[in-house]
Amino acid sequence: MTVHEMIDHHPRAIALDRELLRRCIDDCFDCAATCTSCADADLGEPDVQEMVRCIRLCLDCADLCTAVGKIVTRQTEIDLGVVRAAVEACAAACLACGDECERHAGHHEHCRICAAVCRRCEQSCRDLAATIG
Amino acid sequence: MTVHEMIDHHPRAIALDRELLRRCIDDCFDCAATCTSCADADLGEPDVQEMVRCIRLCLDCADLCTAVGKIVTRQTEIDLGVVRAAVEACAAACLACGDECERHAGHHEHCRICAAVCRRCEQSCRDLAATIG
Amino acid sequence: MTVHEMIDHHPRAIALDRELLRRCIDDCFDCAATCTSCADADLGEPDVQEMVRCIRLCLDCADLCTAVGKIVTRQTEIDLGVVRAAVEACAAACLACGDECERHAGHHEHCRICAAVCRRCEQSCRDLAATIG
Amino acid sequence: MTVHEMIDHHPRAIALDRELLRRCIDDCFDCAATCTSCADADLGEPDVQEMVRCIRLCLDCADLCTAVGKIVTRQTEIDLGVVRAAVEACAAACLACGDECERHAGHHEHCRICAAVCRRCEQSCRDLAATIG
Repeated sequence: MTVHEMIDHHPRAIALDRELLRRCIDDCFDCAATCTSCADADLGEPDVQEMVRCIRLCLDCADLCTAVGKIVTRQTEIDLGVVRAAVEACAAACLACGDECERHAGHHEHCRICAAVCRRCEQSCRDLAATIG
Repeated sequence: MTVHEMIDHHPRAIALDRELLRRCIDDCFDCAATCTSCADADLGEPDVQEMVRCIRLCLDCADLCTAVGKIVTRQTEIDLGVVRAAVEACAAACLACGDECERHAGHHEHCRICAAVCRRCEQSCRDLAATIG
Repeated sequence: MTVHEMIDHHPRAIALDRELLRRCIDDCFDCAATCTSCADADLGEPDVQEMVRCIRLCLDCADLCTAVGKIVTRQTEIDLGVVRAAVEACAAACLACGDECERHAGHHEHCRICAAVCRRCEQSCRDLAATIG
Repeated sequence: MTVHEMIDHHPRAIALDRELLRRCIDDCFDCAATCTSCADADLGEPDVQEMVRCIRLCLDCADLCTAVGKIVTRQTEIDLGVVRAAVEACAAACLACGDECERHAGHHEHCRICAAVCRRCEQSCRDLAATIG
């Protein structure tokens, strides 16, 4: 994503580990898009009745990933307490959504892909949180 | 907000305390709008250079309040762990933003108002979190 | 909403009709919350299979109302061309969502309420657009 | 982005040109992240007073790109009128933001990059709109 290049030209010092930050930004935006798509694919399935919990958790996860992706992108006057709470909430949403998608991974390929993206985003959020006090 | 009436007609059982839930939904949407407005008013001030931290924290707070307002609105197949992590992150953002706005409350009326809205939303989020295990 | 009070204390001149602006801000945030709730209530209905189009249009409408509510809230360095395009897109989403919710108004009270909120938001967006060139 | 793979496994027929759709989804999410970063980099510049219009337009553009990125990602029960209005609004925001960033491209590298991303997203939105009636 172009946002990496943006951060390389940021006028302020970057307070967080650059490699973990890049991964967290990428994974949050990727997970926001993927969960939006998984909720939509679930809605299009003949067994939508069985996918209700998956849809709900994908919507929650997409909402948090969108917000947290923007928060971790910002480097000016960063508040590490807010960043830590934000990535921890995002990790919790990714965990719940990843678990639910995994239950459907055998019969819905979009759930298998979405589960993997949620796992990766959860890990990136936890890794970034671990570097903050 | 009309969303109260919506929840009164929701087909599923409401797992959370109704009064605390209503306040949390109201306060999250109100705080999202107010922080969006405060960041914008800060940008319009002659002393914008002094308001940079306030703008940044208002943007973070607006992003989290928007996401969390939607998450707490949803009642179908609720995951209480996700809700708790989400409202805790929102409370952290409201705390940081309320503290910063309070520093400017004497010279910017919009910051005084925004600080009060952040305090109220922080409390509503903490009250709802306290009812979840 | 507290955002009215915020705009009364904004440091810059307000370029738009204040009464139409207030209504548009209120209605966008109210419609964002209501459509989020209606999509969620639809998901919780036994006839969810029949509600798929309603859920999809409620999600689109909530996304646009959230974005446009923030855009119309901002008064600093306003670009009227962006505002007009934004409220016109919001009106289009409200029209489609209101029409679909109306089809279910007889059997789902949340759809009846949501249709009315969409109609009102559509009108507020069109009224504001009409004042811009 | 993983969302391409998701759309390849979507249960419903894809109503839009796949190549234009992919580009529009990619460019909306990329532009949302880049504009979020540009507003933040502007805030961190010593000449923030000169960047106020740029910050405001980047925030509007990020909000619309986020909403429209989600709308174009959804393929179930698509409403082409909503999609067209949404991508047209996004193109208008990208045009205004790209023009303003370009004015600062000579002295702020982040604005030069952001202008290019806005131009690309504007074009992708217009190309997709052109395929819809």
